[in-house]
Amino acid sequence: MITELISVGTEILLGNIVNTNSAYLSEKCAELGLSVYYQGVVGDNEERMKLVIQTAIERSDVVILTGGLGPTEDDMTKEVTAGLLGLPLVEDAHTKERLEKYLKEYENNNAQRRITANNYKQALVPEGALILDNHNGTAPGLIIEKNGKTVVLLPGPPDEMKPLFEEEVFPYLRKKQPEVIYSQMVKICGIGESQVAEEVQDLIDKQTNPTIAPYAKIGEVHLRITAKGENEKECKKLIKPIVRELKERFGKNIFATDEDKSLEEAIVDMLKDQGLTLALAESCTGGEISARIVNVSGASDVFTHGFVTYSNRAKRKCLGVKKSTLKLEGAVSAKCAKEMARGGCYFSGADICLSITGLAGPGGGTKELPVGTVFMGCCYNSKVITQEYHFSGNRSKIREQATAHALALLRECIMEGISKKG
Amino acid sequence: MITELISVGTEILLGNIVNTNSAYLSEKCAELGLSVYYQGVVGDNEERMKLVIQTAIERSDVVILTGGLGPTEDDMTKEVTAGLLGLPLVEDAHTKERLEKYLKEYENNNAQRRITANNYKQALVPEGALILDNHNGTAPGLIIEKNGKTVVLLPGPPDEMKPLFEEEVFPYLRKKQPEVIYSQMVKICGIGESQVAEEVQDLIDKQTNPTIAPYAKIGEVHLRITAKGENEKECKKLIKPIVRELKERFGKNIFATDEDKSLEEAIVDMLKDQGLTLALAESCTGGEISARIVNVSGASDVFTHGFVTYSNRAKRKCLGVKKSTLKLEGAVSAKCAKEMARGGCYFSGADICLSITGLAGPGGGTKELPVGTVFMGCCYNSKVITQEYHFSGNRSKIREQATAHALALLRECIMEGISKKG
Repeated sequence: MITELISVGTEILLGNIVNTNSAYLSEKCAELGLSVYYQGVVGDNEERMKLVIQTAIERSDVVILTGGLGPTEDDMTKEVTAGLLGLPLVEDAHTKERLEKYLKEYENNNAQRRITANNYKQALVPEGALILDNHNGTAPGLIIEKNGKTVVLLPGPPDEMKPLFEEEVFPYLRKKQPEVIYSQMVKICGIGESQVAEEVQDLIDKQTNPTIAPYAKIGEVHLRITAKGENEKECKKLIKPIVRELKERFGKNIFATDEDKSLEEAIVDMLKDQGLTLALAESCTGGEISARIVNVSGASDVFTHGFVTYSNRAKRKCLGVKKSTLKLEGAVSAKCAKEMARGGCYFSGADICLSITGLAGPGGGTKELPVGTVFMGCCYNSKVITQEYHFSGNRSKIREQATAHALALLRECIMEGISKKG
Repeated sequence: MITELISVGTEILLGNIVNTNSAYLSEKCAELGLSVYYQGVVGDNEERMKLVIQTAIERSDVVILTGGLGPTEDDMTKEVTAGLLGLPLVEDAHTKERLEKYLKEYENNNAQRRITANNYKQALVPEGALILDNHNGTAPGLIIEKNGKTVVLLPGPPDEMKPLFEEEVFPYLRKKQPEVIYSQMVKICGIGESQVAEEVQDLIDKQTNPTIAPYAKIGEVHLRITAKGENEKECKKLIKPIVRELKERFGKNIFATDEDKSLEEAIVDMLKDQGLTLALAESCTGGEISARIVNVSGASDVFTHGFVTYSNRAKRKCLGVKKSTLKLEGAVSAKCAKEMARGGCYFSGADICLSITGLAGPGGGTKELPVGTVFMGCCYNSKVITQEYHFSGNRSKIREQATAHALALLRECIMEGISKKG
């Protein structure tokens, strides 16, 4: 079923708030197998709202509106929608009672807030609408069925919208779906977006069901394989040979086949499986790699120390980098990265230490050592390897890429170290 | 001028990513005095893209499109837009050269990545378009003028889109505006959004020109004061008394009156001015505070050491936290935060050390020590203060808030330490 999401609110058009409702609803609709073809935002303006909602009702089967259900005159999502569908607004006794109870309680706790005549506007509903009780605010949710179209109206605040959607709208829409949609993610690191695209082009060219969609992230490419079928089992059966083919093509570069698994999670899992501990010695990334690892719940089992050695003195004192290395080769050098990694293992007692030192700019670059030059080291099984990279872009872009590539290198080193052990 | 924003990308319709580009562009358009009437999202589908872009060009003066400029076959924003405007695509020699240079550099550093035929698609531009060089990626930005309409095409990744918009599109659109619009930002930390809103409500109620618009960021509130006038001088004159009034109301909580200045930059500036050095001792934030500080170009002048002491052993070994403290009070305690801050100064030799230890969850919470409990310490002038916080939300939300509040606390401590010195 073709679905359209419309957020109503001038505050979104002014950029005062980020529209997280649409991201949430899109993900839920994907889960339901609804095809969201359009998202839109319109301000609290009657004429423009009419235009946007009318278009949506014409071209989509399901229209989900959020916002504009409040008590003020600016709030007119319900009025405009009912008008377009030719439905009169009638007072709902149950909603009126709920409102009075809700506002009474609120009044007791908040001296500044009073029940106003405006509030009773929220007890008016389009005739025949299904009313969804809002336990976290005053505006009820509404589901309207007319001429084969489903229009859902939900309040704008995420704290009110999400429970209403999850508890009432989700099960309602699930019942309407004839077909099951199921998708699986294949996540790749260490290969660029366009190369991945080229290597799967033949599969995309001949695809019908399932389909493959690539998503480029910094330092990663995600491929979503989506199948439609009568049930989940049939979908999984359609997806299986594609995943097998992708595994053959991208091999070790695939770090996850799980929707929710991040690269740092894959790394933490590998470390846990092998009973290894990790330390990090960062200069130019300034703690970003550590922060990524710590973002994994349970990282404390494997991650012990992070050294952010931004000064030369810190590199010497915390990691034992030699004075002569810093003097002769400089802080941004393979030798410094090597000593940082070795020192990180030594001083932390961890099994593996990844080090990184580089020039994120904008200043400090020379012809021999341009901005974007980054050296990484990895010490494991008492061996140290180093690698040189050259990234482009501004300071934060260079650091972001360096972080992404450091995680990919770390993963590779753990895999190789393990294979050499075996 | 009526303005419309369109984001292209199936990943937004599937909810894979939150559409932060629209919030950013809306804020910038408000700054320019452009009236954003509509925002829309459409997937990588030719027919639906045509429909959405056609409608936008008809009803708006300025249409800003983001996304769909990549090298893959799915990327067709440029092709569809050029088609609708009746402009042929021609190869731009300069862009081709820039692409080859950019990809060559990338290739040298990344043996796994090759230039593919796909990439050359990005050198094709609609005839007569103004080409904006992208220094952070391959797709150029484009500005097309046709029949009194302005259509702007920008790449989707925020790191590429934002610099292009700021450096090229913003000044271009500013010149098109008949009236001068000038705005100034007042950035506040250490006070909640609703309190700020309440304290400026009287100013907002009676405003005409200039206007005040609040923008809530994590741990910060930004107030944009915007004036319209015949020239910049007149606008500045209108803005001045409002800024003076805000300074009176929010005093020390204002950390910047400069559009581009971040909280971490304000801190680095303060440290530089006073010739002070900084160390950081992080547990639950895992390096995020260090990463924020290092994001400031020139941070190396003041930031020396970051200790990410995620394990108890690291807290003891790197920062000298007492065994008895960890045993009796636990790692998440005011005493531990105190010892971390003191140890951070001692082991780094820095003048100031901020420490942070807390429970980011999801596991590990108890009734006495619920998830979200965070202790911070700050050691300066050989004194240590500690502070307790309780944040809510998921793991990354808690860590994000903790980082923002840590920076606010650090700033406060530097200010107070300095005032006590004087």
